[in-house]
This record gives sequence, structure tokens and C-alpha cells, in this order.
Amino acid sequence: MEKFEVHILGCGSALPTTRHFATSQVVNVREKLFMIDCGEGAQIQLRKSKLKFTRLNHIFISHLHGDHCFGLMGLISTFGMLGRTATLHIHSHPQLERILTPQLNFFCKDMSYKVEFHPFDPTKTEVIYDDRSLSVETIPLQHRIPTCGFLFSEKQTPAHIRRDMIEFYKIPVYELNRIKNGADYILPDGKIVPNSRLTTPSAPPRRYVYCSDTIYLPHIADQIRKADLLFHEATFAQSEQARAKETFHTTAAQAGELARAAEVKQLLIGHFSARYEDEKQLLQEASAVFPNTLLAQEKLKISIETH
Amino acid sequence: MEKFEVHILGCGSALPTTRHFATSQVVNVREKLFMIDCGEGAQIQLRKSKLKFTRLNHIFISHLHGDHCFGLMGLISTFGMLGRTATLHIHSHPQLERILTPQLNFFCKDMSYKVEFHPFDPTKTEVIYDDRSLSVETIPLQHRIPTCGFLFSEKQTPAHIRRDMIEFYKIPVYELNRIKNGADYILPDGKIVPNSRLTTPSAPPRRYVYCSDTIYLPHIADQIRKADLLFHEATFAQSEQARAKETFHTTAAQAGELARAAEVKQLLIGHFSARYEDEKQLLQEASAVFPNTLLAQEKLKISIETH
Repeated sequence: MEKFEVHILGCGSALPTTRHFATSQVVNVREKLFMIDCGEGAQIQLRKSKLKFTRLNHIFISHLHGDHCFGLMGLISTFGMLGRTATLHIHSHPQLERILTPQLNFFCKDMSYKVEFHPFDPTKTEVIYDDRSLSVETIPLQHRIPTCGFLFSEKQTPAHIRRDMIEFYKIPVYELNRIKNGADYILPDGKIVPNSRLTTPSAPPRRYVYCSDTIYLPHIADQIRKADLLFHEATFAQSEQARAKETFHTTAAQAGELARAAEVKQLLIGHFSARYEDEKQLLQEASAVFPNTLLAQEKLKISIETH
Repeated sequence: MEKFEVHILGCGSALPTTRHFATSQVVNVREKLFMIDCGEGAQIQLRKSKLKFTRLNHIFISHLHGDHCFGLMGLISTFGMLGRTATLHIHSHPQLERILTPQLNFFCKDMSYKVEFHPFDPTKTEVIYDDRSLSVETIPLQHRIPTCGFLFSEKQTPAHIRRDMIEFYKIPVYELNRIKNGADYILPDGKIVPNSRLTTPSAPPRRYVYCSDTIYLPHIADQIRKADLLFHEATFAQSEQARAKETFHTTAAQAGELARAAEVKQLLIGHFSARYEDEKQLLQEASAVFPNTLLAQEKLKISIETH
């Protein structure tokens, strides 16, 4: 099956701890790498992950709090020192370009590659990336500043040709691409062989959802329904529910509620408050609501399989 | 003896490796902490060091390359989240304030403390910090951009009173402070007891030198003569001497030459190029010239003792 993996580079929240780096992830879709958020130390973690720097061309920033973007300057300048030539695309709130440009002009003059900003409006859902095999759309969230999540949707791949049927009907090779893409086949005598007899459907396309940081928003269940994997922030335990609301964060149980309501296949929780010595309690609280829950941790790699 | 320690938070050079963080150190002089340079991840390393964040009030930045200052924003905002109230003083080239101010205005509005910039001219030697027990002066260096090193000089502490002599001459308690500070004592009969008979000298004041990044500059030996500890960059091995010159860096052997010419007591080398899998070769080359050489490494703490 084509690769669709999520690598956790950092899953702490704003205050640094000795256990977690600030938020950053890499999504590997068929060896194209997409970074989500870029907290301080993301480039260090990326190097440890052994993922290939050169395959990373797009970075998506959920919101402009430091623990989600302070690693950008280091990453960008390191790419420059490594002689990168491909343009690096940064998708974010428009303000990021205004903040980074003076720094790029000062620290990264004469770089061998370009940084291109793609501003989006986090208050509405829009497709912000689209290629042959993948699209990325925003999920408006509610945090103390404009924030959105991201929905990575793999595209349906062509159906698989049934070799036995091709031979049976003596179908010439040059017809195969059309059939893969859904066409029926017309026999010399004019009879139609329906596509469904010539192919087996390809695996259903997979979807990955990233939501951090946000207050608990039950309504996003609709947009992310039946996703294969949901990463959701779970900054606080149930006992801190008031604090979660006040700071526009989510509790582990609420992340579980959302996963259950959205009928996702798996939940991955992260963005843990520094107050938790370990995150067992958060895992227990989320799992009590939604059993198929995992704790994020640095260096974790999750392969999204077709079910 | 009063504390005078150097903590290495990071000793890599510009390209990140899995072994080293970017440059940052903390000098602990009698429980006042002074940070030198603040590469990405400095706050993470500072937390691991268990040094008390609240005791850090001054940061000295040698030059404005990213690997020496990209950790500042993270550190500053973390201090804000921790509710710091004391002003944080940043000593650097004037340009840093222009670069950081827009970021501070955006990311750190409403912080509970102030960041105050103290610009200096890195092309000349000047005292940029001075208190009762310590002064810090700049050491002009030569790198691709304006750069300077720092000389931390402990001040002479008062002499120790010889209790036996005080008793012998029946000197009243209220005279002791004057005597500590060098005064002679006049006996009731007018005879003078010289200070040297009443005191033993305190330990000689200690000095720590930080030089990174720079081309090899033999002439700074005069300014740093007989320092107790010299941290010097040793980015390259002897075989890369041409590259060192071209990029305005120093080889390990050259760091050794400087240590020998300056008659320092100990040499600590760091700022290792990412090309070295381990730094044994650099240690050998420096030690061949100056035997009392140590390799910097993350979490290393060196106590400067009076000899």
C-alpha cells in the first residue's frame, strides 16, 4: 500500500519540559513530506527522524503562537546551508509573512532557494493544497487567536485491472488506462463489458485530521467524519475542565467525545500540559470514552492503513 | 569558595546534528546566572540543566548568526508564561533590538516583565556589565559579521582577617571592615600595625573567556592573558585549515596555540563542525599544542577553581 504516515516530532504544549518538544509533525504521503506546525527544535527532531529534508516542500502552520512556529527560522536557515534549491511553501495566517520577512531578509540573505508564503483565512474551510494524490483543507477552530486544523485527504487511486478478465476478453494493452479510470469496454461485436467486471476497486482513500489548539468543538465531527486518524490536542485532564475552557483548550475526555461522535478509526492525543509528569491519566480519560486512543510521543510514527 | 561555573547548553555549529545543540552557555557566578549566546533549543537545555530560570537576568549575544540567537524568542516567551517579573537584559549588537522588537510586540504582548536591550559596539573593547563581584568586557573578534567574545572577570574579594592578630592587638570589632578593605591599624600608643600583618590575602580573582565565532586571532592573547578558563571555538581540524580561514573560523590546533600564547590555565573547545562524527581528532590536535584541553559537550559543567 502507498505510504501514509504521521511522524510526531514534538507533542508538548507551550511550556517546555524535559520530556517533550514543542508541537511539530510530519505527514509522509507517498514520500512527499508535509510538516504541520514547527515549534522550537523541529529541525533537530526532523534530523533525528531520518526523514529526508529535501522531500519536505510544504509547511502548514495552525496558528501563530510561539510553540507552533518558533522553529521556522532555524529550519529555513538550515535548509539554506544545505544548499536547498526547491521553493519552500509555507501555508499560514497572513500575519506570519509580515513577521518572518524581516528575519529572512536579515538572517537568510543570499539563500539558494525561495520561501513562498500562502496565506489562508483560518475562519473558513478551504482547500489550501491539492495535488494528484492528496488535498489538504482547513478546519476552522477556536483558540485565543485565529487557528485552524488540517484535514489531509488522500485521493482515490485508479481501480485495479483484473488480469483474468483482460485475457478472457482479449482486451489490447492500450485500452487498459481507460479501463483503470472507469471506462467500460466494447467488444468487437458491439457488446458492452461493464467496468465493474474488468476491475476491482482500489483501497478507499485515507484521511488524517490534525486539530490543535482549540476549545472543544463538537460540530467539527461533520467535517472529519470517519477519518482514519484524528490527532487532537488534549492539553488537560478532566479535573482542569474549567481551565481548558478558559484557555481555549480541550480535555482528554472531550477529545475522546469528538472521536466517538465523528466515528474516526483512531484517536491520537497530544499537546500535553507541562503539569503532567506522565500522560497516563490523559490516556485513561480519553480511552474511557473512545477506546482506540493512543498517546503521542516524540519519535512515534503511525502508519495509516486501509481498513 | 564562591561559585564560578560554566554550563554548556549547546556546543554545535550552524548545522544541527543529533549530537549537539546550537551554541549556548550559562556562567554561574555566585548564583547569578549569565547566558552567553542562545541558539535554538537553549531553553530546553536550560530546563534540563536544572539551573534556576529566575536567577538569569543577563544574556550576552556574541553575534547575529541564527545558531547563536534563534533560541531567544522561545526563552523570552517561556519566561513570560512563567510569570517572570524581573527585567531581562540582553547585551548585543544594536541590530538585534530591531529584529526582535516586532516579534516581541506580536508574540509577547502583555508579558509580566520587560526585555531591555543594551547595544554595544563589537569592534572595540568595552566593559558592558559591572557589579560588585563581576565585570564583563567585550573582546573584538573577526567573523563574517560583527562579532565579539566576552571576558568575565571576578573582582578581588576583601582580604581575610587573621583572628589571632586581632586578639593579640585587642582590635575592636568596628574596625574590622576597614582592615578587611586594606586599612592599617593604629595602636593606642600611635604605633602602626601594617594591614599585611592583620590579614591574609583573599583568593586571586578568576577569569573566564568566551571566544566564538572567529578566525584565529593571536593578538587577543594580551587581553586574556592567564585567564583561568578559555572557551574557544574549534570548528575545524587541521586538514580544513583553508576552509577555516575562508569561513572565518578557527582550527583546534589554532585554539591550542592561542591558549598556549595567552598562558591560560585551561582550554575548552567547542562549536564543532557537523562533519565530525566525534570530536576526538579535534581534541588530539588542540592537546598536542596545549595539553590542558577539554572538549565541550552538552550538560558539561566546569567549576573554575582558584589555583
